[in-house]
Amino acid sequence: MRRLHHIPLSPFCRKVRLALAEKRLEVDLVEQTPWSRSLEFLRLNPAGTVPVFEDDEAHGRAVICDSAVICEYLEETRPERPLLPGDPRARAEARRLVAWFDDKMHGEVTANLVDERVMKKVRGGGHPDSGRIRAGSKNLATHLEYVGWLADQRKWLAGDEISLADFAAAAHLSCLDYIGYVDWDSVPSAKAWYQRIKSRPAFRTLLADHLSGFPPPAHYADLDF
Amino acid sequence: MRRLHHIPLSPFCRKVRLALAEKRLEVDLVEQTPWSRSLEFLRLNPAGTVPVFEDDEAHGRAVICDSAVICEYLEETRPERPLLPGDPRARAEARRLVAWFDDKMHGEVTANLVDERVMKKVRGGGHPDSGRIRAGSKNLATHLEYVGWLADQRKWLAGDEISLADFAAAAHLSCLDYIGYVDWDSVPSAKAWYQRIKSRPAFRTLLADHLSGFPPPAHYADLDF
Repeated sequence: MRRLHHIPLSPFCRKVRLALAEKRLEVDLVEQTPWSRSLEFLRLNPAGTVPVFEDDEAHGRAVICDSAVICEYLEETRPERPLLPGDPRARAEARRLVAWFDDKMHGEVTANLVDERVMKKVRGGGHPDSGRIRAGSKNLATHLEYVGWLADQRKWLAGDEISLADFAAAAHLSCLDYIGYVDWDSVPSAKAWYQRIKSRPAFRTLLADHLSGFPPPAHYADLDF
Repeated sequence: MRRLHHIPLSPFCRKVRLALAEKRLEVDLVEQTPWSRSLEFLRLNPAGTVPVFEDDEAHGRAVICDSAVICEYLEETRPERPLLPGDPRARAEARRLVAWFDDKMHGEVTANLVDERVMKKVRGGGHPDSGRIRAGSKNLATHLEYVGWLADQRKWLAGDEISLADFAAAAHLSCLDYIGYVDWDSVPSAKAWYQRIKSRPAFRTLLADHLSGFPPPAHYADLDF
């Protein structure tokens, strides 16, 4: 059986969970605590990060590390139900947006808010830093506007077809929504886009997540929020 | 004519310069100062980062942002002289190492040393932070050992063929070598690998770089260092 080593509120793991589910690939989820630096896990991924994907025997035993690398690998080994468009320029635009969300939005928003509000407590890392929380909240408004602007211009964030760009954005926003930080009503076009993607069967796995000690707000799993 | 917007001591730009040169693609280099946030440059790349690649008309006018995205785009539009192996698992290993150098080594080493030693002064950002310089130097020793270990196990860092993994590693190490921080004699297998890659014609563009006010050490451009 194939396995995905993950942590529930990691946007990188969530992007891969969405990609796997969109490709109808079932996977055993194995929850990790990368900060405990277990030797067993470091043998899988010397970088010590999640997600790590263990592929099944039919495709040859393989251990694939890093969320962007896993997504490219899935595109190459399971080209049905593509996650990227066909044209190289359109692929570059989808990948640009994935990098936008995973680098820029992560650094400016998700890392600040999810780390301070949840992961510090989970890891036992001290008190939340209110400066990072303020910065994250402020930057989230700008990033939500950008999502809304893209959703206004295009059918999906990177173009006519749903792509990894949508799954990357939704992965970050779903983590932020879990901790109640997304003001959906402030950007109606972003909300309408999120309603569409949240209704997809692939999203169900994320909506069922429940972190002990951190209950999500009532609207988190509601498709009609 | 195609153009690459870059800064000389950016490992991400250097990786793309190596990739372009390995594919025998000539390019006009346009030096940018992304920290000045010019509107003209932000129109090219709203993330405000280098490198940005402007492709020529023969392949359709295209603006491609982000070093990893540019490299995938070059593989797709110029498949001759490939930068990644053919097998999906081998491709994943090459991409894993690119992410290792561009994320982990960058955060632990290159950002600390190049930012503090050079970019802060270039940008006018105050005095170097000696804590970051100490951390960067210490972490560099570990990363150089990892490069040496890979070079001991394999012909090139990701396997039998030279790949983006080698160019990413060489891009970081060439920046660090420019500021005189690499103790090559401490890891002979890493030094032998770097000698091989440094001798390639594609490397000449990097060895000719000269930052005003920051002369490189004498061995920087020497193939027999």
